Amino acid sequence: MWDQLLINARLATMVGAAPYGAIDQGCLAIAEGKIAWCGERGDLPGAPDSLAREVTDLDGRWITPGLVDCHTHLVYGGDRAGEFEQRLEGASYAEISRAGGGIRATVTATRDASEEELFKQSRPRMAALVAEGATTIEIKSGYGLALDQELKQLRVARWLGEFGEIGVRTTFLGAHSLPPDWEGSSDDYIAAIIAMLPHVKESGLADAVDAFCETIAFSPEQTEKVFAAARALGLPVKLHADQLSDLGGAALAARYQALSADHLEFTSREGVEAMAAAGTVAVLLPGAFYTLRETQQPPLADLRDTGTAIALASDCNPGSSPLTSLLLTMNMACTLFRMTPEEALRGVTINGAKALGLQDQIGSLEVGKRADLAIWEIERPAALCYRIGFNPLAFSMKDGRTL
Amino acid sequence: MWDQLLINARLATMVGAAPYGAIDQGCLAIAEGKIAWCGERGDLPGAPDSLAREVTDLDGRWITPGLVDCHTHLVYGGDRAGEFEQRLEGASYAEISRAGGGIRATVTATRDASEEELFKQSRPRMAALVAEGATTIEIKSGYGLALDQELKQLRVARWLGEFGEIGVRTTFLGAHSLPPDWEGSSDDYIAAIIAMLPHVKESGLADAVDAFCETIAFSPEQTEKVFAAARALGLPVKLHADQLSDLGGAALAARYQALSADHLEFTSREGVEAMAAAGTVAVLLPGAFYTLRETQQPPLADLRDTGTAIALASDCNPGSSPLTSLLLTMNMACTLFRMTPEEALRGVTINGAKALGLQDQIGSLEVGKRADLAIWEIERPAALCYRIGFNPLAFSMKDGRTL
Ligand SMILES: [Zn+2]
Ligand SMILES: [Zn+2]
Repeated sequence: MWDQLLINARLATMVGAAPYGAIDQGCLAIAEGKIAWCGERGDLPGAPDSLAREVTDLDGRWITPGLVDCHTHLVYGGDRAGEFEQRLEGASYAEISRAGGGIRATVTATRDASEEELFKQSRPRMAALVAEGATTIEIKSGYGLALDQELKQLRVARWLGEFGEIGVRTTFLGAHSLPPDWEGSSDDYIAAIIAMLPHVKESGLADAVDAFCETIAFSPEQTEKVFAAARALGLPVKLHADQLSDLGGAALAARYQALSADHLEFTSREGVEAMAAAGTVAVLLPGAFYTLRETQQPPLADLRDTGTAIALASDCNPGSSPLTSLLLTMNMACTLFRMTPEEALRGVTINGAKALGLQDQIGSLEVGKRADLAIWEIERPAALCYRIGFNPLAFSMKDGRTL
Repeated sequence: MWDQLLINARLATMVGAAPYGAIDQGCLAIAEGKIAWCGERGDLPGAPDSLAREVTDLDGRWITPGLVDCHTHLVYGGDRAGEFEQRLEGASYAEISRAGGGIRATVTATRDASEEELFKQSRPRMAALVAEGATTIEIKSGYGLALDQELKQLRVARWLGEFGEIGVRTTFLGAHSLPPDWEGSSDDYIAAIIAMLPHVKESGLADAVDAFCETIAFSPEQTEKVFAAARALGLPVKLHADQLSDLGGAALAARYQALSADHLEFTSREGVEAMAAAGTVAVLLPGAFYTLRETQQPPLADLRDTGTAIALASDCNPGSSPLTSLLLTMNMACTLFRMTPEEALRGVTINGAKALGLQDQIGSLEVGKRADLAIWEIERPAALCYRIGFNPLAFSMKDGRTL
């Protein structure tokens, strides 16, 4: 006997040939936190009441997989609203930087915050994502930039997942930015990161390792050293790649079988082909594109053409994407990148899951996967992308429990 | 004795020379639905408990005037999510139009809907705005395009205001688009609108009259006829002006002492000067700019230079701006138009009020004005613009009642 049976639903399974893998007269059964049955009402092996302890009529509402935000920096201290205002009042980036602003302000505030303070400041950001149907969120470190401080961020990330009863995947991003205390010694800092990695691994606090490969951050050679060390420890890698210039980041990520390469505005055709061959997911981040008023479009035609999986994420961070909405992320992907609503929904479900290496557990409505579900008051899935600043979530479930 | 006294608040009064008209250790008293006292704690004429029946400690939260959305089309039937999807899947605008899409789809769905259906479909859109602190919303007709149908829309708008216990201002927009049944006879349709105006006036259902002056809609000459007739009846006017081309709409609006001219991307310096001289408010609509991926920026420098009041609004409509968030509107105004956060907040408070002719009643925290308040969990007003997809509203009040 199943624990719960949802009937009279429309399902966006995200598998199969039909758009959205849609099932019009759908039912979905949950047992032991997993999807036990999923299909058309007519194929149910009996009367609903005889099959499950609890039967819920969804009155035609849509069920999608619980949303996945596969790229966030949502654990941080402080606030950069003042800096946002100063920039719009005419202060130059250099002036703000000299005044201790920019990422340095966040590093200082994050270092100064206790675990409890970081938790308290980060929780509303997670809650905003969850309120719109997110059931799995990736959270990166990268504002501590020293072993103990990075581990503090990662512990807060794990704590948020336990508190929120959602899935949290953590990523060690020691190679985010050269910390103020290492100025002029970026190779030494990379060596320090490599020395941190065994401790990170041993702590069990990081599910993957990420780096920021860019002219304003770390070089491809430095990135490669971090990746080689991570892979030697059995840690999967991800990369902030080709956001502002083409340093060959996508191809570098592919060489190390990265789970994903993220941003990708300047990635070349060769880079995309390397990702496709390696099965590396392309994570597009329209919130940063929007906030930075970028004009270089990510290589959508190449990604489509090569069959590269495309994920979308909020990139929630205090500087370039203070965004805590996957629905807006989807709208921006459609509006700014001209992705289709189906691609956008795939980007925050099955492909988001793939970017975290979790495609066997979450991201689609399939028997055996976790019962991570979002139930929506909409007439068609495209409505999730079409509306701007509107939340049609009825409720969501993680492992079969209503959130 | 006051009904209520809010203490330990930070006030963005939006009056006076200080940025945001801010008061750091602020108190605000409410009596008979109006602001009875507003100022620094130290200036309170006695102990809080001796002054008011109810004293509420806001623990440092910010109070702003209740937000004003001075330009929406939020009462409509149907949904255009399917069309949004078709466009992104490659359908041309002409193909969608031939298939009955575009504004015609909305006109058909609005005409086919009963008052109850229209109310039910529109209520969640109003609720989304109210959930983010809106206490006054303008709602236009313009999808009925026949007298009884336009009055139906306006009755639903009034009903929404009574139901939601918020302020609703209604605008008759019969000259929105040439209805399908009048194709080829736009001058005749304009004559029909002019014949409708006395009935609209008599119904008491419209607080103002609006028109869409654009190459794809009505000419300046046609607009002028509508305006002359409206003004002769004592109805104030507003104009959708210069969105896609410079037809001199802003200057035309100014000639008729319009409350506002809206959109304005292509408005010339002369148009701005005419508006400034007439006291016509410039209403910018970044949601439409974003959705249509416009590149022509509204003349912000000229508006600033001439001291023209700038308001912001959602333009909530099913085609070019399916937006139901004033916070996002503010973020877009900062991000896309480079307005300052203070200008943005002014745009959805005092200048939004002015665009509706209500500047003596709402839009700022001043003694004698209605106690329309939004109370926020923020550290500074700029946070309202900085965050994307996050709602920090603690609660709001309309006429002193908590919504
Ligand atoms: Zn990032
Ligand atoms: Zn409009």
